[in-house]
Amino acid sequence: MTDRHEMWKELGMDLEAHDTLCAVLPTAFGDIFLSQENRPEGMAFYDMVVSDIHGIRPAELIEEQKRGRKIFGTFCLYVPDEIIVAADGIVTGLCGGSQFWVPDGEKVLPKNVCPLIKASVGARLGRTCPFFRIADMYVGETTCDGKKKAWEILGEDVPLHIMDMPQMKRVKDIEKWIGEIKEFKQVVETFTGHEVTAENLHAAIVLLNKRRKAMARVYACRKADPIPISGKDVLLMTQIAFFDDPQRCADQANALAEELERRIDAGIGVFPKGTKRILLTGTPMAIPNWKMHHIIETSGAAVVCEECCTGTRYVEHLVDERPMMMEGQLQALADRYMKNNCACFTPNKGRIDDIIRLAEAYHADGVIDVNLKFCTLYDTEKRDVKRALKAAGIPVLSLETDYDDTDAEQLRTRVEAFIEMLG
Amino acid sequence: MTDRHEMWKELGMDLEAHDTLCAVLPTAFGDIFLSQENRPEGMAFYDMVVSDIHGIRPAELIEEQKRGRKIFGTFCLYVPDEIIVAADGIVTGLCGGSQFWVPDGEKVLPKNVCPLIKASVGARLGRTCPFFRIADMYVGETTCDGKKKAWEILGEDVPLHIMDMPQMKRVKDIEKWIGEIKEFKQVVETFTGHEVTAENLHAAIVLLNKRRKAMARVYACRKADPIPISGKDVLLMTQIAFFDDPQRCADQANALAEELERRIDAGIGVFPKGTKRILLTGTPMAIPNWKMHHIIETSGAAVVCEECCTGTRYVEHLVDERPMMMEGQLQALADRYMKNNCACFTPNKGRIDDIIRLAEAYHADGVIDVNLKFCTLYDTEKRDVKRALKAAGIPVLSLETDYDDTDAEQLRTRVEAFIEMLG
Ligand code: SF4
Ligand code: SF4
Ligand code: SF4
Ligand code: SF4
Repeated sequence: MTDRHEMWKELGMDLEAHDTLCAVLPTAFGDIFLSQENRPEGMAFYDMVVSDIHGIRPAELIEEQKRGRKIFGTFCLYVPDEIIVAADGIVTGLCGGSQFWVPDGEKVLPKNVCPLIKASVGARLGRTCPFFRIADMYVGETTCDGKKKAWEILGEDVPLHIMDMPQMKRVKDIEKWIGEIKEFKQVVETFTGHEVTAENLHAAIVLLNKRRKAMARVYACRKADPIPISGKDVLLMTQIAFFDDPQRCADQANALAEELERRIDAGIGVFPKGTKRILLTGTPMAIPNWKMHHIIETSGAAVVCEECCTGTRYVEHLVDERPMMMEGQLQALADRYMKNNCACFTPNKGRIDDIIRLAEAYHADGVIDVNLKFCTLYDTEKRDVKRALKAAGIPVLSLETDYDDTDAEQLRTRVEAFIEMLG
Repeated sequence: MTDRHEMWKELGMDLEAHDTLCAVLPTAFGDIFLSQENRPEGMAFYDMVVSDIHGIRPAELIEEQKRGRKIFGTFCLYVPDEIIVAADGIVTGLCGGSQFWVPDGEKVLPKNVCPLIKASVGARLGRTCPFFRIADMYVGETTCDGKKKAWEILGEDVPLHIMDMPQMKRVKDIEKWIGEIKEFKQVVETFTGHEVTAENLHAAIVLLNKRRKAMARVYACRKADPIPISGKDVLLMTQIAFFDDPQRCADQANALAEELERRIDAGIGVFPKGTKRILLTGTPMAIPNWKMHHIIETSGAAVVCEECCTGTRYVEHLVDERPMMMEGQLQALADRYMKNNCACFTPNKGRIDDIIRLAEAYHADGVIDVNLKFCTLYDTEKRDVKRALKAAGIPVLSLETDYDDTDAEQLRTRVEAFIEMLG
């Protein structure tokens, strides 16, 4: 593997601290992923990317920067990639998924903040993630309390643009969101030096729909029994999509989907037919957060779908490609993004409908609703989720977890009991 | 004292649970307030109100309801009272300030939610607060995560209207806020059956400015040394203002201010001249939360000002009374309310400016920045507050507290050390 230390050094990273992260990640990945049996061959691409996760893609991004392209770091599914791509910019996700970054985040944030935010801030301030170093501009949004305040810290030494999310979904809120997308377009145009035109925006909409369709094709294969791919592997594909080039992402996902479709035709699965099927819902699982999937899939069940931002929310709902004029395109973007049912909205009934719809579509035997600790939004919504699923006759287990592993055994016990109960 | 059990029963309250609250409140009030020396005579009114806090004002409200007036329960300083008053409605604050209500809130909310929200929800669900029973409509806002989700629970069995707060303060956000006020006006008009006209809105603006001016006059007296009134007593006046009739509130505050002005002329104070002066900033202190004031004022210092929603934010900034047409009036309302610098905004630099301005105006020797536990917004902002105050050469102590008293001794130790250090 290419030695990346020179690149990391030029990025101003803390090499010593980063080396300790690099030392543990391959073992964790090996234990969790490579130990799986009968994995699809299409996963080789993703394994390769992870094996050099702070090398391959960062090196590409730096090359693109040298060609004058700008990199935008985002933290939320509501930020419309299409605007960035239309202006020849590049999007990279910046959500931190490892406990490794949490202590650096806790230096400036209260402990009582969700680990995703602490890890993201820690990755920036500790200088231990190349993506946080490479991004030319960060894009924030006003989704939750922790993030609203985190921008004030993150924006201290990097250009940061904030999109003000409506907190409700009435017609006028969608109009407000169009206004935010318009402003974002201007910011991106100025920053990249490229005008967003109806033409390049159309092309971007088509490209990102292509990515969604390809990934959704992989997701659809999970409806089969036996299931041709593990939940872990689909999660990994999804996590990497946030960093990857959209066209390559679509190509790889389509190749994987083809393989899975062949498996389905041949009745090949990674778990025995009849394995209990779990729909996971809740807070996002940023790379390398594979904790819940690993616990569930080593407790005798399969994760068949994720109703969350590193799941169906990323791949469902296409942007309407028909409008060919800017106004209609912006409306189409706002409409599509506002179909995302995040707990940051009040009320958020749509999420409950999604969970029930997906549980049925993916033939889930049960739902596990899990939130990251100190995420008030998803934590509070668990009550509604539980009530609605009980009414629908779908078994549900509500859990809370953190990035560290101290709760792993306790979670495993509860998950095993739940799966047992599914009978 | 009139026996109120019949009234409480008719309100559908849990009499048994409520009696246990009634049993402890007078002792707490006596220990904290009546033990003070040389209190202004004008406090007698507030003492009387508190002595029958779930009786006098609730009975008045019920009388008004019988006359056909509607009661609106609010939870935040951004909800413009003027609209309600213009439509002949009555406003009552509904923020819970006692640990008594927390366990009932925790039945439906995560423990990791700020006690103010847990107490408010608990007061509703436990049926142990008459104001929560009396209010015909609740008015929510999208300020923080906990409240966004609490509305979904609170609104299950009472009409609840939510105002979508902008999360930033650009020109277009103020325009959005005007739109929210307009919608609120329609809701209030329909609910009360009274049209909001330029005339009655003007009268409401004048009335509520009068309340602000009278209360601000009391606050201004606190700039004197010796200080003619304790921080506790001003806090009590402010807490009761949220429930009281605005005209009576203004009259009582003016009478109190006159007395305090006479005291200043005569050099009379409630603490010795030269007593260390503390500006308190942070989360609101809903009645009967007197904890920090009590600790500070029994540790040798005086609270001379509160930069918070139960403090200067309630009394500063008049609504412009000049516009006589609806459009101008709504703009004036939006402008005034958006001067409130709550941590729910990103960024929120205005609050830092306020703290420094108020610390100077009130001749504070030090600032204590305290947030309720699990309030991510104010907790995170403490870092910025500390940094700015240090740069301004103003000593600052950052604290966190909860509604229960388990941390009281620890807080006292830290407060005493801080006050000692100011010496
Ligand atoms: S969970 Fe909500 S706030 Fe978080 S990334 Fe998803 S949409 Fe954004
Ligand atoms: S998990 Fe919850 S608290 Fe954390 S960033 Fe997402 S919405 Fe915010
Ligand atoms: S602190 Fe903020 S959210 Fe709370 S009452 Fe004040 S303005 Fe409203
Ligand atoms: S104290 Fe903080 S968490 Fe609690 S209601 Fe106010 S803004 Fe929300």
